[in-house]
Amino acid sequence: MSDPKIIDGNLISKQILEELKVEIAAIEGPQPRVTFVRVGEDPASVFYVNKKQKTAMEIGIDSSVQVLPESTSENELLDVIDNLNNDTSVHGILIQSPLPDTISEEAAFNRVHPDKDVDGLNINNFGRLCQEDATGFVACTPAGIIELLKRSDVEIDGKHAVVVGRSLLVGKSCALLLMQKSQNGNATVSICHSHTQDLTAITRQADILIAAMGKAKFITEAMVKPGAVVIDVGINRFADASKKRGYRIVGDVDFENVLPLVSKITPVPGGVGPMTVAILMRNTLKAYKKAHLAD
Amino acid sequence: MSDPKIIDGNLISKQILEELKVEIAAIEGPQPRVTFVRVGEDPASVFYVNKKQKTAMEIGIDSSVQVLPESTSENELLDVIDNLNNDTSVHGILIQSPLPDTISEEAAFNRVHPDKDVDGLNINNFGRLCQEDATGFVACTPAGIIELLKRSDVEIDGKHAVVVGRSLLVGKSCALLLMQKSQNGNATVSICHSHTQDLTAITRQADILIAAMGKAKFITEAMVKPGAVVIDVGINRFADASKKRGYRIVGDVDFENVLPLVSKITPVPGGVGPMTVAILMRNTLKAYKKAHLAD
Repeated sequence: MSDPKIIDGNLISKQILEELKVEIAAIEGPQPRVTFVRVGEDPASVFYVNKKQKTAMEIGIDSSVQVLPESTSENELLDVIDNLNNDTSVHGILIQSPLPDTISEEAAFNRVHPDKDVDGLNINNFGRLCQEDATGFVACTPAGIIELLKRSDVEIDGKHAVVVGRSLLVGKSCALLLMQKSQNGNATVSICHSHTQDLTAITRQADILIAAMGKAKFITEAMVKPGAVVIDVGINRFADASKKRGYRIVGDVDFENVLPLVSKITPVPGGVGPMTVAILMRNTLKAYKKAHLAD
Repeated sequence: MSDPKIIDGNLISKQILEELKVEIAAIEGPQPRVTFVRVGEDPASVFYVNKKQKTAMEIGIDSSVQVLPESTSENELLDVIDNLNNDTSVHGILIQSPLPDTISEEAAFNRVHPDKDVDGLNINNFGRLCQEDATGFVACTPAGIIELLKRSDVEIDGKHAVVVGRSLLVGKSCALLLMQKSQNGNATVSICHSHTQDLTAITRQADILIAAMGKAKFITEAMVKPGAVVIDVGINRFADASKKRGYRIVGDVDFENVLPLVSKITPVPGGVGPMTVAILMRNTLKAYKKAHLAD
């Protein structure tokens, strides 16, 4: 990690959390509070909720977890969300995905009050993202990418950003942020995906290349312009017999071969990943401020 | 207009209106109904509301206009909108802009019930546009552009569409539609704007070029790839001493000089413009169907 080209997401997220901790420590009266809702016992969900709760505690955010049985119906979950929406002591609500197949995630996310939607998944917050309304909540991964670029002194304004992947949560949201009329926006943005013809011709134009298609090591050195900044959002299993579990985690970028070309690049793991929890905490503090401003 | 390269928006919008008329004639019981809300006596607003009402009448859509005095407060307007939201005989609501400076247009548009928002300006409908939820309403200009392309047999899937201009109502919405996972989407999309460096290098890659920056004759032949399809959304005054009023209306494209290069192009006027009223009527019928499906 000592290569100055490598953007250290662990370090940057730690800086953000430190800043939040200082700001939260100065709050008098009740602390910011977030409630995590988990349905069922999916091991990854248990792990992630625990991790988020631990981070919250470390920086002075109160949290609680509401655990519902796997058999919970959609209506029962929506009732739980309504109660949390109405509970003025709760500033942020996060519905941990994945939910059981019997429950529509979209219905659940859209039920969370937009001003408590610290995960930025409510339809209203996507609308605010389109409207460039800074009072809205942006989903943690795209917001984390912008923050990584900003804190790595990457100029975005006027640059050509190419986003590969058009998922709502990453590619599309990222594109909307990068094109916003703001200091950390104003990029020319191209969005590529599985239907793109001659992908390389477009990715090679990128000053900033966001790889978010979910294909292991898909972005090779031939697809990258020398001097580009590369942000790798992928998290893929890659067969590796030297590992006990038989695989290792790699990104969407062929990191070793692309590294010599770039001016900056995020590693996987340790790049975009660690940013999401930090942004979640930042959003919780924002939700707290919103609630208090509304008083 | 006899040049087969020229996309005739008047003709296409007439076809759409004819189709809607047939569909509406088959409806038994109460007809689809739209209410226009106009605040003050801005002559352009009077003209446009009259035109929309006339078109509605011609195809069998009931309409009414609620005219409020220029002095109307924002709260008074919001109350009027609430009443229309609650009136089950009204399927579509259109708040004619511009509103007086004392009223936030965003607040008014966001107050219209999302399922009656035939103008597609409610935050919820922008969210649905992001989510690619086809049950939402898309604003009339971007939806009209897609319809023009579709009815002119322009293939969008896999093509490189370049949108110049990033306004929410045109450029950004158009980009979101063009990149959707659908038969009339799946384009690689680039969004350019005032901060774009070397605009020509990007516009010259466009298989489909959408000009929506509001600068008269800005897109010259040097910026267009031979064989491209060019959609001109601009409506600009251009000094012309031969006209009694001293100007004529031109688009964002230098039409005469670009025409020889393209495979298809929309004129101004008579291209995108006429589509907006047709799409408004289509949205009204959709709102009517939504209301009846919800019964």
